[in-house]
Amino acid sequence: MPAHVHPFLVYYEDTDFTGVVYHANYLKYMERAREHCLGVDELVRRWRDERMGFAVYHADITFKEPARHGDTLEVHTTLTRESRYRFLADQRIRRPDSRKDMVIGRIQLVTIRGEAGKLCDLPDDLEPVLRRYAPDPTPARRR
Amino acid sequence: MPAHVHPFLVYYEDTDFTGVVYHANYLKYMERAREHCLGVDELVRRWRDERMGFAVYHADITFKEPARHGDTLEVHTTLTRESRYRFLADQRIRRPDSRKDMVIGRIQLVTIRGEAGKLCDLPDDLEPVLRRYAPDPTPARRR
Amino acid sequence: MPAHVHPFLVYYEDTDFTGVVYHANYLKYMERAREHCLGVDELVRRWRDERMGFAVYHADITFKEPARHGDTLEVHTTLTRESRYRFLADQRIRRPDSRKDMVIGRIQLVTIRGEAGKLCDLPDDLEPVLRRYAPDPTPARRR
Amino acid sequence: MPAHVHPFLVYYEDTDFTGVVYHANYLKYMERAREHCLGVDELVRRWRDERMGFAVYHADITFKEPARHGDTLEVHTTLTRESRYRFLADQRIRRPDSRKDMVIGRIQLVTIRGEAGKLCDLPDDLEPVLRRYAPDPTPARRR
Repeated sequence: MPAHVHPFLVYYEDTDFTGVVYHANYLKYMERAREHCLGVDELVRRWRDERMGFAVYHADITFKEPARHGDTLEVHTTLTRESRYRFLADQRIRRPDSRKDMVIGRIQLVTIRGEAGKLCDLPDDLEPVLRRYAPDPTPARRR
Repeated sequence: MPAHVHPFLVYYEDTDFTGVVYHANYLKYMERAREHCLGVDELVRRWRDERMGFAVYHADITFKEPARHGDTLEVHTTLTRESRYRFLADQRIRRPDSRKDMVIGRIQLVTIRGEAGKLCDLPDDLEPVLRRYAPDPTPARRR
Repeated sequence: MPAHVHPFLVYYEDTDFTGVVYHANYLKYMERAREHCLGVDELVRRWRDERMGFAVYHADITFKEPARHGDTLEVHTTLTRESRYRFLADQRIRRPDSRKDMVIGRIQLVTIRGEAGKLCDLPDDLEPVLRRYAPDPTPARRR
Repeated sequence: MPAHVHPFLVYYEDTDFTGVVYHANYLKYMERAREHCLGVDELVRRWRDERMGFAVYHADITFKEPARHGDTLEVHTTLTRESRYRFLADQRIRRPDSRKDMVIGRIQLVTIRGEAGKLCDLPDDLEPVLRRYAPDPTPARRR
């Protein structure tokens, strides 16, 4: 099971008056999961020393089942390199011990550098992380 | 020009330490724009009287150019019915007097009712709003 | 009537599942009002050219009446210099045409400069703003 | 050591373009800490079964030292009953293993019930929690 798993709790702040989590907040959960997956200290270091960071270029989110206050949930993340500049984070929000996706995010990220946000190559030290959290090459997908 | 235009300002709260707007906040701008486009009073009344609301089912967002603190921007919204249950909000964030899209959102919404969020038909009184903000049937698109 | 008045609308994002505005969001409304009151362009310019900004040092907030989705409200702001380094923003959230405070904020701000946030004197060009939005010296208060 | 300790990490979403945590977000950290301290399941149950909840009536916050992206911090919370209706949460944000307060919050909460938010007595089952997280009666304070 290669996916990175980030557990989180749904707090008051996450919900709106309809009783469920406000839709944009799922993007926050996914971003927090990516920080842990990519390494918070590495993200801090890259920004401090090189003004390098990862920016969301494209996000495709499907909302299948709403979460509510007090829910303990998980973000399951796998990573795939898509080009010299870009990688994909496949992120699924699930209840613990469930295989059912509540929210599915396909988030494409690029590496940028400097105040102007100039596009640059993915850093070499991202390689081991991409390998570690690569999607499971199940027989079904290999065909 | 049929699109609904919602102007907004980028405040401190919208940005993160990299100097630009945090990506999830563009979904908030688009949601605010939909509230104005669909009618805030109507949204309040539908929820209060019928526990009916519109939920985001799918969101496809492309981030092309970052916004910064102090930027005055606009959300341009058009609406298209897609099925008995679903409509599409095409939303583009632009600088005033510019045709260049900074962020493009294609947000699909469904009508839900009750605490359990049961799917139901789009309400009849949504029809005039969908007609009013229908996409421009330009020759280029008609082909 | 000297107070600066900033109107705003309560959106979905502002509420939580209890049906009212999440308490921390009133601080956001007040901050947005201060941006308009102090001048957004001036805030942008001071940060860009001098890395100077205003930081909240102390906040005292009383929550008297909750706001709900769809409410149109106002932040009424007056400013008072308290020392070389500090000024007070007295901010009251009210319904239009009402004198009743829903939320009362007394926000003390200091001027800071640089990445390290070093305390410095209030800038000279803040003076006209402080005079313009000074509290009303009503007879009752003068005694 | 009687205080409840809630650890948290500062994510991208928490910061603004000045490089530090946006001031209103400290109120969110404190609220999350209170949820854990008071018991998330109990909060969920009280709202579901009795439409009872705790509302912030007054907040006094002193911001002494800013937090930054990647910081691992803690909220230290003690609770004190102040009246039949009200209790105080004394909440201090600190670095692990430090006694220095970065942010100090004194948050007064009341019990409310129903959609209208009617004030009611603190529930009996709050008593053990208030006793458990009572402030340390140090000699200095007893005098």
